[in-house]
Amino acid sequence: MHGGFAMLCAGAIRTKNTMNILLQTILDACVSAIAFYICGYGFAYGGYWTSNQTYSVPPNSVIGTSLFGLSNYASENYNNQNVNGQVYSVHWQDFVFQWAFAATATTIPAGCVAERCNFNAYLAYAFFISAWVYPIIVHWVWSAYGWMGYGRAVTPHLLNCGYIDFAGSGVVHMVGGFSGMWGCILMGPRMGRFDSNGKPVDMPGHSPTLVVLGTVLLWFGWYGFNPGSQIFVNSVAGAQVVGRAAVTTTLAGAAGGLAGLIWGYSKHRSWDLLGVCNGVLCGFVAITAGCHVLEPWAAIIDGAVASVVFELVCIWFLKLKIDDPLSAAPMHGFAGMWGLLCVGFLAKSEYVFQEYAGNHPDSTGNLYNQAAYPYGAFYPGGGGRLLASQIIGICCICGWVAANMIPFFYVLKLFNSLRISAEEEAMGLDVSKHGGSAYQPENQKVIEPYPDNG
Amino acid sequence: MHGGFAMLCAGAIRTKNTMNILLQTILDACVSAIAFYICGYGFAYGGYWTSNQTYSVPPNSVIGTSLFGLSNYASENYNNQNVNGQVYSVHWQDFVFQWAFAATATTIPAGCVAERCNFNAYLAYAFFISAWVYPIIVHWVWSAYGWMGYGRAVTPHLLNCGYIDFAGSGVVHMVGGFSGMWGCILMGPRMGRFDSNGKPVDMPGHSPTLVVLGTVLLWFGWYGFNPGSQIFVNSVAGAQVVGRAAVTTTLAGAAGGLAGLIWGYSKHRSWDLLGVCNGVLCGFVAITAGCHVLEPWAAIIDGAVASVVFELVCIWFLKLKIDDPLSAAPMHGFAGMWGLLCVGFLAKSEYVFQEYAGNHPDSTGNLYNQAAYPYGAFYPGGGGRLLASQIIGICCICGWVAANMIPFFYVLKLFNSLRISAEEEAMGLDVSKHGGSAYQPENQKVIEPYPDNG
Amino acid sequence: MHGGFAMLCAGAIRTKNTMNILLQTILDACVSAIAFYICGYGFAYGGYWTSNQTYSVPPNSVIGTSLFGLSNYASENYNNQNVNGQVYSVHWQDFVFQWAFAATATTIPAGCVAERCNFNAYLAYAFFISAWVYPIIVHWVWSAYGWMGYGRAVTPHLLNCGYIDFAGSGVVHMVGGFSGMWGCILMGPRMGRFDSNGKPVDMPGHSPTLVVLGTVLLWFGWYGFNPGSQIFVNSVAGAQVVGRAAVTTTLAGAAGGLAGLIWGYSKHRSWDLLGVCNGVLCGFVAITAGCHVLEPWAAIIDGAVASVVFELVCIWFLKLKIDDPLSAAPMHGFAGMWGLLCVGFLAKSEYVFQEYAGNHPDSTGNLYNQAAYPYGAFYPGGGGRLLASQIIGICCICGWVAANMIPFFYVLKLFNSLRISAEEEAMGLDVSKHGGSAYQPENQKVIEPYPDNG
Repeated sequence: MHGGFAMLCAGAIRTKNTMNILLQTILDACVSAIAFYICGYGFAYGGYWTSNQTYSVPPNSVIGTSLFGLSNYASENYNNQNVNGQVYSVHWQDFVFQWAFAATATTIPAGCVAERCNFNAYLAYAFFISAWVYPIIVHWVWSAYGWMGYGRAVTPHLLNCGYIDFAGSGVVHMVGGFSGMWGCILMGPRMGRFDSNGKPVDMPGHSPTLVVLGTVLLWFGWYGFNPGSQIFVNSVAGAQVVGRAAVTTTLAGAAGGLAGLIWGYSKHRSWDLLGVCNGVLCGFVAITAGCHVLEPWAAIIDGAVASVVFELVCIWFLKLKIDDPLSAAPMHGFAGMWGLLCVGFLAKSEYVFQEYAGNHPDSTGNLYNQAAYPYGAFYPGGGGRLLASQIIGICCICGWVAANMIPFFYVLKLFNSLRISAEEEAMGLDVSKHGGSAYQPENQKVIEPYPDNG
Repeated sequence: MHGGFAMLCAGAIRTKNTMNILLQTILDACVSAIAFYICGYGFAYGGYWTSNQTYSVPPNSVIGTSLFGLSNYASENYNNQNVNGQVYSVHWQDFVFQWAFAATATTIPAGCVAERCNFNAYLAYAFFISAWVYPIIVHWVWSAYGWMGYGRAVTPHLLNCGYIDFAGSGVVHMVGGFSGMWGCILMGPRMGRFDSNGKPVDMPGHSPTLVVLGTVLLWFGWYGFNPGSQIFVNSVAGAQVVGRAAVTTTLAGAAGGLAGLIWGYSKHRSWDLLGVCNGVLCGFVAITAGCHVLEPWAAIIDGAVASVVFELVCIWFLKLKIDDPLSAAPMHGFAGMWGLLCVGFLAKSEYVFQEYAGNHPDSTGNLYNQAAYPYGAFYPGGGGRLLASQIIGICCICGWVAANMIPFFYVLKLFNSLRISAEEEAMGLDVSKHGGSAYQPENQKVIEPYPDNG
Repeated sequence: MHGGFAMLCAGAIRTKNTMNILLQTILDACVSAIAFYICGYGFAYGGYWTSNQTYSVPPNSVIGTSLFGLSNYASENYNNQNVNGQVYSVHWQDFVFQWAFAATATTIPAGCVAERCNFNAYLAYAFFISAWVYPIIVHWVWSAYGWMGYGRAVTPHLLNCGYIDFAGSGVVHMVGGFSGMWGCILMGPRMGRFDSNGKPVDMPGHSPTLVVLGTVLLWFGWYGFNPGSQIFVNSVAGAQVVGRAAVTTTLAGAAGGLAGLIWGYSKHRSWDLLGVCNGVLCGFVAITAGCHVLEPWAAIIDGAVASVVFELVCIWFLKLKIDDPLSAAPMHGFAGMWGLLCVGFLAKSEYVFQEYAGNHPDSTGNLYNQAAYPYGAFYPGGGGRLLASQIIGICCICGWVAANMIPFFYVLKLFNSLRISAEEEAMGLDVSKHGGSAYQPENQKVIEPYPDNG
């Protein structure tokens, strides 16, 4: 109940993302709130909660089918029913918390397509992701009857095991990151990003100060997402999970940052502070999947490797001539993917049991039955079932995103409304589209995230 | 108890306001804290809480008469009394929470009088508002014995019904907005704001980035004000109110932002991002009154209309040659007024009952007695009593503010200490008053909120 | 439990410090997290908490001896033990909360040595402080068996009374401030800071806006530190302490800010807004020691005097030709010292008893036994025992910091790796060390905290 506030904080803060694209993120929050209210929340959780704990519509493991426009909330939840009060009281807050995640997934692609995306295309994909693409995956993984969720009530579900993704390395970050990647690929690089020989030309950001400020605010916000994802903090076990999530999140971010520092130094012989910020964020993205089931030392490995994965994917993207201005796809897509794999290797049996058996006791009651709760392949007896689930989960998410976003962006491209015109791009978006004259000429540059050199 | 922290957050964050006037807001927080400690809190809540639940002074429905300098707190609340512990424990925190609102009301006028207000006048009005003007209205509306509060214990009170203002659309925002408006009118426009033909000359802000950052921080902060205003979150009903307030706040802000986007596009054929920010904030201001009693769909209407009201009032102000640099009066004064009216139309019976009957059961016990709790005129059976109360409430607040602030600013004007001299204004306040040489010349411009063109 | 979130917030926010050194603070957070995980937390609290409430290693009043790398946490705390559940559940979160303080202590010196510190020296001292210097003092004061803590179980402890430092005026701020001071002295002033006659040359900061933003964020963050330090908020008394801490913190900051305003006006006849920000922060630093045991009026005195102490020490530093770019040593070191003395004078008997007797009942049970809980010398009967303890505590902290940091910085100096070369300093650190070419030339200046004039 109280954790809800911290979550809300995070939600709002999260919309700030990397601060370079601040001007669009406020719209992301608006569009996603309306879209999530109209249909997103229904697709994600519809058919799950109703006032008398029976299901108004039969639960469906693939898609939610009610609660559109919060319709049931409004009519059923006004009176003071004390039965199962804890469950009722969380209803309304749950929408806001879930919206915070939806807004995050919606904001991520903006980094990939920055500086060349048509504004109508931007509005369209923001609505599409938060109303349809993202909620379906939420239903699969986080709703009580999703076919991919770990230890869910539905049978049969994924390998009779399920996929562990605590706060959305896959559900949120991979969805956002890969959606952005497809947009990025279909749009092509910014003018002048690669010279006539195909060599990349640096287009640095305009304000490291803002990047650092954004990183620090996200460091703060992530405590809302990761520890906050333990929604019901009313048991000792739950409180331990919250605490452990806070510890692993801290250490993974720190390890990611230091790995970024060392990587930058070994490559450039200078202390690259932008690399530190990226490393910290990659560490956070990766630990998001497993912050509740990893040991502290495992969190350090998780974060540090995520930072390296990120740097390698960035190099690979440049070779492929994919121009992702904020490196959002490597950070959220690929570091998130690594985080999910890491859970398959390093999830600790006792922690998995503590988290999932509490809510979903198995047939033998509350006794500790390791076999029923598959854990990481690294530990003796872990086996590969969880790891296999994680891999299948990753593939399903990637597939769903590609199946939706590639046609979506392609249709926009056919109608010539995906990318702005070359003249507009050369002028800069602020002048051409956003009534640039509203700002003073000498300050105009401040709001161009990446001034065009071409 | 725990909600208190979120409120504190909001309080501090709120002082940031629109970031253009950051340099004054830190002083607002200081002045209002001291003023509210010395007498504001006493005027607002004095005579209400004492250690043994009897009233040390007879409760008064017009003005508080004790607790100046937190005098009773210091002497009466040190020991471990367990009787009614919940009530005792909130005492100290309550001061800080209430101060956060006072600081908000005090900060709003700074936007109206920016760039031309004498610094002494500024200090004087900040003290005057937080020590006297604002607390009196708080006592009327929010204290247990105020004559304007909805369902209060005092009889007779306003239309035997009372006025609903959950987190201060009227108490906080209208007080701040209209105080600023009177200052703005009595000061006259900035030099060069209107040309010789009376046509307005644009004086744009210097940094859209800061405006967006401010908006996002306020989005976060508002969750402290609106959901946080349900002070006692210890019942299922209370938790539902918190959750509903979070949902309606989110949707109203989003709707306001989108309305601002559409308005801007239809007028200028460009995507005006400043308009989005203003729209979001107007939506928040409006929903502040009724976030606990409106349906989600009603919140969307509330926020969207607030944004339109704001734009229309801005145009009207320009016609009247009122120069409000940050549009603080249209935003806080008029959008707040709309929010209060909206409650009169759209407050839902069940929600009103849930909020107010829980704390103040009527004579028939806890049974659901619709007639005793008037609700919105839109719903069948609602009648006009609540709407009439809202309108009377609006008039009383406007009247009280005008009766205090017009003479106050007028006296300052008589003594020639309301506005800075023309030379100082042309030079810019930072250089003339704040030891501008302390900052480097080339960066000087950064701290002038609106450089003078004249 | 829930307060934990607010604390985490504060921790992250706190790393922002004054925003002028933002680029280093993110690394501080990373380095201190790893260092505190590896050994700092063990030195601070090792030997204290174990799973069955017996001590795995004998408690030691001088140094912690277990819990390195959170080793016990990982192995002992996975299962659902309900006995003493409250204590268990806080374990993991406690690490993050304590790390937030460690990160603060580690961040403070960066302000003292800004613009001339070798990056390796910076990494080394950050690790050294968070892994060794700071944790030892934490053990003395805050662990259950520290010899300096007020009313601790260990006997004999300091004057059979102990030293009161609620949230770290001494433990955190003096450690950071004096560590920085020694670095500052051993490094010498920046080039061009004092002219050939020894007169100081102004080297103003580049962005007052960022200073104000930092101040406001810290205002918000401090509510996490001070009220948040009452870790177990599960009693009425505890909740009162939280509320009182919030009130005193607010008032001390406000008083400090106003004192700074008046001081600046009386000296320069201009309203010095930077002085207000410094005053606010000094007020916060000072009240940190006694926010739980001071009356509101005492908090106002505390904060206002702290602001004056700060200004006087700044003048004294200039006379001594100590160049502390951000005045971090006067602010954190000396204002913190004043805050501790103030507790010795003004701690109120009832409040001291409420805070400390609740957790550590004396031999006569829970009855109110004033004599066993020494309080401030100002109140009748207070006597000087608490004041003497505070003075001894201050001396011990200063001595420990000097004994560690002087040799540490001296050795670095011997190996010529304390300060950057004169050429690098003239060029500016960003270009020479951090791959300045990564940023656009015209924006380069934005990230130089204090551009060199020499």
